[in-house]
Amino acid sequence: MTRQVTRGRRPGSPETRDAILDSARESFATRGFRGTTIRAVAGDAGVDPALVHHYFGTKDDLFLAAMHMPLDPRAVLAGVLQGGLHDAAQRLLRTFLSVWDDPGARQPLVALVRGSLAAESPTSLLQEGMLRMVLQPLSDALPGPDAELRAHLVATQMIGLIVGRYVLALEPLVAMSQDEVVASVGPTLQRYLDGDLG
Amino acid sequence: MTRQVTRGRRPGSPETRDAILDSARESFATRGFRGTTIRAVAGDAGVDPALVHHYFGTKDDLFLAAMHMPLDPRAVLAGVLQGGLHDAAQRLLRTFLSVWDDPGARQPLVALVRGSLAAESPTSLLQEGMLRMVLQPLSDALPGPDAELRAHLVATQMIGLIVGRYVLALEPLVAMSQDEVVASVGPTLQRYLDGDLG
Repeated sequence: MTRQVTRGRRPGSPETRDAILDSARESFATRGFRGTTIRAVAGDAGVDPALVHHYFGTKDDLFLAAMHMPLDPRAVLAGVLQGGLHDAAQRLLRTFLSVWDDPGARQPLVALVRGSLAAESPTSLLQEGMLRMVLQPLSDALPGPDAELRAHLVATQMIGLIVGRYVLALEPLVAMSQDEVVASVGPTLQRYLDGDLG
Repeated sequence: MTRQVTRGRRPGSPETRDAILDSARESFATRGFRGTTIRAVAGDAGVDPALVHHYFGTKDDLFLAAMHMPLDPRAVLAGVLQGGLHDAAQRLLRTFLSVWDDPGARQPLVALVRGSLAAESPTSLLQEGMLRMVLQPLSDALPGPDAELRAHLVATQMIGLIVGRYVLALEPLVAMSQDEVVASVGPTLQRYLDGDLG
């Protein structure tokens, strides 16, 4: 590992950062999220693991950077939940729509969804990477013994909205304004968050 | 076309039916739903178009047979709606779960969903084939100017449930009993069918 650092890449150069991101993308795609280690990514990029940590933080952080995620879902979720749970659904939807309705921000997300749903891959980056990063903190923030189930019910409606409005681009869903989405889908999410599940 | 009938296949034989289904599958996969015609499928299979109609009915019918669909979504939907709209959501969910919770019935459906979401295909069989066959009659059965939107909102929640419980197989969703799914997701669907959309 140390030997590889001397290959000639200057540690602080943009080329080094790009090389790390390329190695990370390659590793996530072939080894999956769980199978990827900072150490292996560093080895592939010919740098010291400490440098990967220094530039990109944890494996979750590296994943978000490598996948070109337009924002950090953990920070977004924390912001949404900070305002309290009783009206979190509409804040969640508005934030969600501000990202997904932006074609530039949406593009890497759609690619991730397509790639993860495509094959019977043993390494779903959507599940182990993205969804876990959102579902775990959401579960932790919800009340009662159903917290984990509630978070996953929210996920079903959000995933369905993503597939319908952005992946399949079904016309009546694409045509909805953000206010219309909030008015129609918001109550569903609010009930899953803290309502009566029957 | 007529010349090809004389290739030696007996019109009524199981081999002829299989050859038609093979040609249909090939055509749907490569030309998409809209690009597929009964005439072309017949030509590929070396039979007369009338024979395809005779065995398989319309293009929709041929699609369902070629995709190994475990049931006819149009008939299922008609049965669900026949009982009236005020409690259609739970009937819809129970019927849905009886199909999707059966691994044998689920398998071709999961393959269709995966294949359709996978690539930026110009020929989404999910949209043009399956969804259209369900969404059109559902829209027609719903009241008011929002009928088409209501049907598509139902689709978002159903698609999300399919992806979460069956494609990604997220643990808390897989663990739900059918009664629990009906209790938690039923009210969402019922509101989309005939409730206040805000």
